[in-house]
Amino acid sequence: MVLAISPMSFASLSWAEESSPWKLGERELPPPAHVSPELRAILENTPQPDVDAAIARRPETLEEWRAFAAESDATGAALVSKVSEVAHIDVAEDEVAGVTVYRLTPPEIAPEYRERLFVHVHGGAFVKNSGLAATSEGLLIAHFLKMRVVSIDYRMPPDHPAPATIEDVVAVWQALVSDHSSDSMALGGTSAGANLTLAATLPLKERGIALPGALMVGTPAADLSEVNDTKFLNEGVDRMLVSWSGYGAGGVELCVGDMDIKDPRVSPIFGDFTGFPPAYLITGTRDMLLSDTALVHRKLRRAGVIADLHFYEGLSHADYLTACPAPEVAEHHAELDRFLKEHLN
Amino acid sequence: MVLAISPMSFASLSWAEESSPWKLGERELPPPAHVSPELRAILENTPQPDVDAAIARRPETLEEWRAFAAESDATGAALVSKVSEVAHIDVAEDEVAGVTVYRLTPPEIAPEYRERLFVHVHGGAFVKNSGLAATSEGLLIAHFLKMRVVSIDYRMPPDHPAPATIEDVVAVWQALVSDHSSDSMALGGTSAGANLTLAATLPLKERGIALPGALMVGTPAADLSEVNDTKFLNEGVDRMLVSWSGYGAGGVELCVGDMDIKDPRVSPIFGDFTGFPPAYLITGTRDMLLSDTALVHRKLRRAGVIADLHFYEGLSHADYLTACPAPEVAEHHAELDRFLKEHLN
Repeated sequence: MVLAISPMSFASLSWAEESSPWKLGERELPPPAHVSPELRAILENTPQPDVDAAIARRPETLEEWRAFAAESDATGAALVSKVSEVAHIDVAEDEVAGVTVYRLTPPEIAPEYRERLFVHVHGGAFVKNSGLAATSEGLLIAHFLKMRVVSIDYRMPPDHPAPATIEDVVAVWQALVSDHSSDSMALGGTSAGANLTLAATLPLKERGIALPGALMVGTPAADLSEVNDTKFLNEGVDRMLVSWSGYGAGGVELCVGDMDIKDPRVSPIFGDFTGFPPAYLITGTRDMLLSDTALVHRKLRRAGVIADLHFYEGLSHADYLTACPAPEVAEHHAELDRFLKEHLN
Repeated sequence: MVLAISPMSFASLSWAEESSPWKLGERELPPPAHVSPELRAILENTPQPDVDAAIARRPETLEEWRAFAAESDATGAALVSKVSEVAHIDVAEDEVAGVTVYRLTPPEIAPEYRERLFVHVHGGAFVKNSGLAATSEGLLIAHFLKMRVVSIDYRMPPDHPAPATIEDVVAVWQALVSDHSSDSMALGGTSAGANLTLAATLPLKERGIALPGALMVGTPAADLSEVNDTKFLNEGVDRMLVSWSGYGAGGVELCVGDMDIKDPRVSPIFGDFTGFPPAYLITGTRDMLLSDTALVHRKLRRAGVIADLHFYEGLSHADYLTACPAPEVAEHHAELDRFLKEHLN
């Protein structure tokens, strides 16, 4: 029986008479009180995100997109080189099923992870982080979890829109399960990488390929077609994405190409998550994809999937990868570590 | 080892040069896309929350507060009478340890709950929902979970500020554990009720009183002294609280009285959660206390406590109690049901 009557009283609420969409007024946002001193210092020293500038900087022509990606990838590769050196992580380029991958080996492997592997799908709005830059999140996982990581350098737009992106992830996974126990391996990533993690798990299931033992779904771009609450509420609040009308939506357009934007291969929220492996999800209060993360969590739960949701005060989109040396970064990885040790076989 | 270098590239971000606090511009917020048709209809038919009107309606004098509470309690009591009749729930007034309680008995008790009890602490900004109105959330729990509920009608300000509120909850709990197995009982509530659930568990632990088998911590007012991200971001977005400067902060002032606002008995986020029972938490994207919920979840996790976090697109503060007949209301109670069946003994 569904109760059609609300037992709470609305008598004390006062509402104006406008209809939707609501027009929200200006407001101030101070640095958050209850975060680590390190994260607070980072946020206090972050100049306010500039929405207009972010939109103006969105590349238009294919040449501009290529230059944008190349510049970002070069900066990313330089940082990866530095981090892998500092953390003594061996980074070896390889090829699996015809796809470039990077094998990341930390100096010490945790005993529980000796026979286990993290298969990492990088983010970057479907246009950035090819080449060595693909490994940035993987390096943190290798470092904090003391775990071997394979980062997939999947093909990307503008030359290779979806579903090439997804098929590269599927091809690498299918090759890896031929000589690894599937449930000893996790599959996961952040942002576009979390989108691809979900989108690739759908064909794995459909084609009867053995599924991962666990998924990491970090602030996923789950619905590329619709707008959700926090894409509005956190515009100009999220220091990483700044605005969905910036390069994020541009990257999405390039990736979707001629496909239907509601195809689960590009917007996995429209897929069927029944039978998915246990999933770890993370977001933050300033994340433009907080809504997407919440929606994926609920959809997994409705499908009966084990799904653990974590969110952090003050963190923007994917900020758990960028806000080093804030202890929140280590905390996320400690939670991921616990989750994988519980669910991988 | 803490990595002091971020492996992600900031090269593509563009920032302005202002310092904190950030000044956020106007924006539009349409009804959310990925919610149930019922919830979408409710939100489309909700006039936009009016911040100025909410602040103007905050009572000032003690007489105004008493009239405000009395009006709200009368409306609440009328609704409770109607709901208990429709749902065939028996509501019996009783007294435990000198405190008024309401014993709620649904027409059918689920087999797993025959020897179990939900001890409910009502919300209402520490000033509302005395008398029969105290049972509104308890009725939903009794109805959806098919579980016996005891709702505590604790003393409230202005006549009885903290710690009288907490001591009434502690006294009822202590009396109940004399003839119930403590870990067969859950303790919980929403908003001020979740604040008191956490605040009362602290003295239970300190005084060596047997702890609940599980806690329900619904969108807790966890820090009454500081402001967190979503108190700013969701002002005028949250259709229930509307603004922290409305009656919410007024109720808090009355409740805190002469106590230090950082005393864990009024702001439990400052307490030590080590050894707390497994906790279920819930919030929504439009909730002004989304940050407080996230902070309590993280603090529980850091203390090694089992804590499951749920959040819902489009829901305002405590909206999972008000948005009937949206299926999100039933979904929350189904999740709470699973959690209690897993963790109560």
